[in-house]
Amino acid sequence: MSSQYGRKLKLSIFGQSHSPAIGVNIDGLPAGIKLDIEKLKAFLKRRSPGQNDFSTARVEDDVPEVLSGLVDGITCGAPLAIIIRNTDTKSSDYREQRDIPRPSHADYSAFIKFGGHQDVAGGGHFSGRLTAPLCVAGGICLQVLNELGITISARITQIGKIQGTDEKMKREILIAKEQGDSVGGIIECEATGLPAGLGDPMFDGIENRISGIVFGIPGVKGIEFGSGFEGAARKGSENNDSFYMDGETVKTQTNHCGGILGGITNGMPVLFRVAFKPTPSIEKEQKTVNLSSKENTVLQVTGRHDPCIVPRAVPCVEAAAAIALYDAYLDR
Amino acid sequence: MSSQYGRKLKLSIFGQSHSPAIGVNIDGLPAGIKLDIEKLKAFLKRRSPGQNDFSTARVEDDVPEVLSGLVDGITCGAPLAIIIRNTDTKSSDYREQRDIPRPSHADYSAFIKFGGHQDVAGGGHFSGRLTAPLCVAGGICLQVLNELGITISARITQIGKIQGTDEKMKREILIAKEQGDSVGGIIECEATGLPAGLGDPMFDGIENRISGIVFGIPGVKGIEFGSGFEGAARKGSENNDSFYMDGETVKTQTNHCGGILGGITNGMPVLFRVAFKPTPSIEKEQKTVNLSSKENTVLQVTGRHDPCIVPRAVPCVEAAAAIALYDAYLDR
Amino acid sequence: MSSQYGRKLKLSIFGQSHSPAIGVNIDGLPAGIKLDIEKLKAFLKRRSPGQNDFSTARVEDDVPEVLSGLVDGITCGAPLAIIIRNTDTKSSDYREQRDIPRPSHADYSAFIKFGGHQDVAGGGHFSGRLTAPLCVAGGICLQVLNELGITISARITQIGKIQGTDEKMKREILIAKEQGDSVGGIIECEATGLPAGLGDPMFDGIENRISGIVFGIPGVKGIEFGSGFEGAARKGSENNDSFYMDGETVKTQTNHCGGILGGITNGMPVLFRVAFKPTPSIEKEQKTVNLSSKENTVLQVTGRHDPCIVPRAVPCVEAAAAIALYDAYLDR
Amino acid sequence: MSSQYGRKLKLSIFGQSHSPAIGVNIDGLPAGIKLDIEKLKAFLKRRSPGQNDFSTARVEDDVPEVLSGLVDGITCGAPLAIIIRNTDTKSSDYREQRDIPRPSHADYSAFIKFGGHQDVAGGGHFSGRLTAPLCVAGGICLQVLNELGITISARITQIGKIQGTDEKMKREILIAKEQGDSVGGIIECEATGLPAGLGDPMFDGIENRISGIVFGIPGVKGIEFGSGFEGAARKGSENNDSFYMDGETVKTQTNHCGGILGGITNGMPVLFRVAFKPTPSIEKEQKTVNLSSKENTVLQVTGRHDPCIVPRAVPCVEAAAAIALYDAYLDR
Repeated sequence: MSSQYGRKLKLSIFGQSHSPAIGVNIDGLPAGIKLDIEKLKAFLKRRSPGQNDFSTARVEDDVPEVLSGLVDGITCGAPLAIIIRNTDTKSSDYREQRDIPRPSHADYSAFIKFGGHQDVAGGGHFSGRLTAPLCVAGGICLQVLNELGITISARITQIGKIQGTDEKMKREILIAKEQGDSVGGIIECEATGLPAGLGDPMFDGIENRISGIVFGIPGVKGIEFGSGFEGAARKGSENNDSFYMDGETVKTQTNHCGGILGGITNGMPVLFRVAFKPTPSIEKEQKTVNLSSKENTVLQVTGRHDPCIVPRAVPCVEAAAAIALYDAYLDR
Repeated sequence: MSSQYGRKLKLSIFGQSHSPAIGVNIDGLPAGIKLDIEKLKAFLKRRSPGQNDFSTARVEDDVPEVLSGLVDGITCGAPLAIIIRNTDTKSSDYREQRDIPRPSHADYSAFIKFGGHQDVAGGGHFSGRLTAPLCVAGGICLQVLNELGITISARITQIGKIQGTDEKMKREILIAKEQGDSVGGIIECEATGLPAGLGDPMFDGIENRISGIVFGIPGVKGIEFGSGFEGAARKGSENNDSFYMDGETVKTQTNHCGGILGGITNGMPVLFRVAFKPTPSIEKEQKTVNLSSKENTVLQVTGRHDPCIVPRAVPCVEAAAAIALYDAYLDR
Repeated sequence: MSSQYGRKLKLSIFGQSHSPAIGVNIDGLPAGIKLDIEKLKAFLKRRSPGQNDFSTARVEDDVPEVLSGLVDGITCGAPLAIIIRNTDTKSSDYREQRDIPRPSHADYSAFIKFGGHQDVAGGGHFSGRLTAPLCVAGGICLQVLNELGITISARITQIGKIQGTDEKMKREILIAKEQGDSVGGIIECEATGLPAGLGDPMFDGIENRISGIVFGIPGVKGIEFGSGFEGAARKGSENNDSFYMDGETVKTQTNHCGGILGGITNGMPVLFRVAFKPTPSIEKEQKTVNLSSKENTVLQVTGRHDPCIVPRAVPCVEAAAAIALYDAYLDR
Repeated sequence: MSSQYGRKLKLSIFGQSHSPAIGVNIDGLPAGIKLDIEKLKAFLKRRSPGQNDFSTARVEDDVPEVLSGLVDGITCGAPLAIIIRNTDTKSSDYREQRDIPRPSHADYSAFIKFGGHQDVAGGGHFSGRLTAPLCVAGGICLQVLNELGITISARITQIGKIQGTDEKMKREILIAKEQGDSVGGIIECEATGLPAGLGDPMFDGIENRISGIVFGIPGVKGIEFGSGFEGAARKGSENNDSFYMDGETVKTQTNHCGGILGGITNGMPVLFRVAFKPTPSIEKEQKTVNLSSKENTVLQVTGRHDPCIVPRAVPCVEAAAAIALYDAYLDR
């Protein structure tokens, strides 16, 4: 499977940081959906680099080019293939990497897996750039979900050690940047308007489905639903969500389960949080090895890198949730 | 998919808490593997109820019965089907549940999904009992992995608010029990001896694969790899794992990535932690609704229930990890 | 996948000719379906051996035993697992086979694939006996399809060189039997009442789906839809099916396409024919090899064998079609 | 799944006859394979239109453009995405089709499935043009298989009623063309050099795998392996393939099983034949319906069409076989 995802909606993502193009083929999208390409571009803009002090200076236009699947702006039932050209590539920045793996990047594990043939330029297929086609697919799913009355929105709740104050979180990133360092963070995502009954038991539950795609975003190292790790510290009487009738509708007083019981939505908002590690590319000198000479060495990563990927990851998390939930909706 | 898991090793799990039997069909196990059934029974024993003060008094023998796939104790390449008979069933305990969903159980979401036809006895297919066939499959994978020099072991790191002291954690469970309440906890799992290069990019990474099965264990609401949520608070310079040569072998000084980079193992131990919510079945009176009369009501859950499922979940987490990792190994 | 089939309805078949049991786990069957077990038994009876002069004398009762997935005879949404115990086993008949592969059986290819660990008794997992769980799943799908107004029926159109005369076809089988030989044949299957629009383009067309399961029946070596191979000899003007309005309904004057255009049903009956090779087990002496000594040798297959499997394969073809079409129906 | 195929090698095909581009994403190709793009172009040339009197005058260059997955001409382990631009499009030819379905085309069944939103221009996603990306993928697999000593070659054995004489078969096509008619035919394909042991039991056998892709080629209505339908008329003593030792190698005297026993290769050539219906697009006036007015009408198909698709389908069958067999090889 690798870069494919989905049960009814089948995504197949391709591309490397510096390949001619990156893109996604989406198989299984119903026919008759009107796509708003301008809205999609606006969504993609949210993950684009070069928009503020916190992100890399590399500027790509990220213009989605529809190759197939649309007739007069409406899905025709055939697979929807969309690509984005890579324009601003500087592959010469990245030569050294084949021999000198960057700490906490995929360089070394990819070297082993692909026998040294992996594309090292800009992280190749492991680059955060590959979240662009994810956002293409997710942006489309979001448009469809919105029509169904379902909204998905994510926000940063923590940057480094700072929780919940926008200004302080921004400063945390700038401090890291000034230090030639980087910083991680946490994103919370909420989906409202979902009907009860989506998802399946055991291995096709909503948690499994969302995790299955969210861990495809580079840098994600943890996920929790509802009260998550915090809930593990509670008593049942504290963590259980009481049911009550709101008119004809069954609701819960609290939402510690994050809208999911037994893997299946219960009609309350689906709520989850995602932990991002600090960007591994930092200017500070790091210890590593030379895979050719099999000797220890040091490395100073140069080039354009975000001191914190979390701000640009917000739409990626929304996209991932939109894909997983729309797929579950089609698969109901 | 629902109750199926795996790429090369295809698990198909069946059964309900009080159906005639529960079981698993395992397709894709290589031929020629000698299974130690006694060792498997010993492994299953670890998740059995009724072994101490912390778990339900319900006693089942959990005798695995091999229906197919073995010849003279050796796998023959045909699917390996193993069942466990349900012997100690008391379905009369559970009648009320169709109308009165238990808070934070799957009762309500399953009612919606299955139109009221779901098996309510003992939680049906959503019961923790279904972790027995998971442990059957996992116990077998563990045997094979051990032969390959790979070990997997899980341990409890937190019960309720108590971290790391066995006696205090036990007392936390007994206190919850005395109060007619329950308590959650955290399990940490480590796999050592894995070769570098297992797993795939994006959606078939080791994190995705392990999450995809671990969230199939009832009560799991969070998972983190390596430094996980803690790591999100760190600087890159603190969280990055420096490479060094240990003789001919590339290793990392720390293991904040949990042995996984870009979804692919790097040869260091795979390390993850799983958050379990407190058992939703508690004796204390809870608010809920009557789905027939559409009125608010209260419920007192009776019957046999663990005040904390975490101790019995330890082998389940090992089983899940073993299945995911052996599947990734076969899929390499 | 191997012994698994289906997109929405996931079959997982297990068992060998002489294992303790054979069976099937069916994941994805909607909840709320009332199963008629007596009707299922009657369907299974049609493929049972020992019912006439044409089939092996081995008598098995083929009593389906439901392990899970049913509550009061109604599907509950959990996987439906059904087994059949193997009672009349004589494994001593089959010892020689590990070294001396029977011509045109799976003995040799299985030996290579499974490194000599395959179950040789009675053909193991490759035995025609494994069509019993296929018929269990198919018989259930047939019941559901019937409720939807869809019928599936298959019939023999050729035995050996004899086409279409029941008495002559029967005699052909008896002649082969008397000669210690066997004979092949062709089965035609028709499904009526299907809505237009089932199936998908390219690799998930109805032809692909039906072939994907029909070639799972031992002995099948060909399949054709509508005019099939005959149609390849025609002009377009002869083979094209003209559309016409039958009241409000679009129909075709002929059905040379077998009810499938572009992989998708057009509302006309789905029609296909399946070619079965003659049973490879014959009493006549045959040339083969000894895999241990690597020498040529001869073999006389003894034991109980059908001189023609085609009569017993009729319900198997119906079962395969029912599973493929009901899966396509659920996947629409 | 729809336009996706494969277990280890995952193809995802996209495009319509007149969309901006058509293409394929190939996930799972091993890293380190050197691709010969010129050789691939030569292979694609074999299915190109406009090369002789038998095929449509539409001329497309079919230049494969690699978007990702290659570094310096060598696969890097990332998905290999290749597109072909559609240049010679005349969408105005096809307007009428939404209301007036062409007999024996997918027009009507696609109309029902996609609610009238299907791309009608040139047959949309159902066009024979979509075999170009199939040939891209297949041509690549052929290169890899050749390196492994495996060859695949297909040839026409029948055009209309004419078998086996090139000149007479060509004349049959020209006669059909002159008559404003079309004609079908049969292609035989042989794969040599395959190791024994590829494929899996039941639903993942080589027959199932090859059928699963071959029926994705437009116009295919039948497939048979080895002696196929002919073999159904034989006695077991005539059809069985005797084993013998050729030095250290086990071979069979005949190859009536087409190199496949129990779904698994036996080391002899894999042999199958595919039946193509006559091209449904003919100049002759045909009866059909108007889906808007719900009245009977007549239709004369104009535009550029092959009087026989069989010659151009030869490389498509090779491509399909190459993909199925290389996937089975990777999945062994």
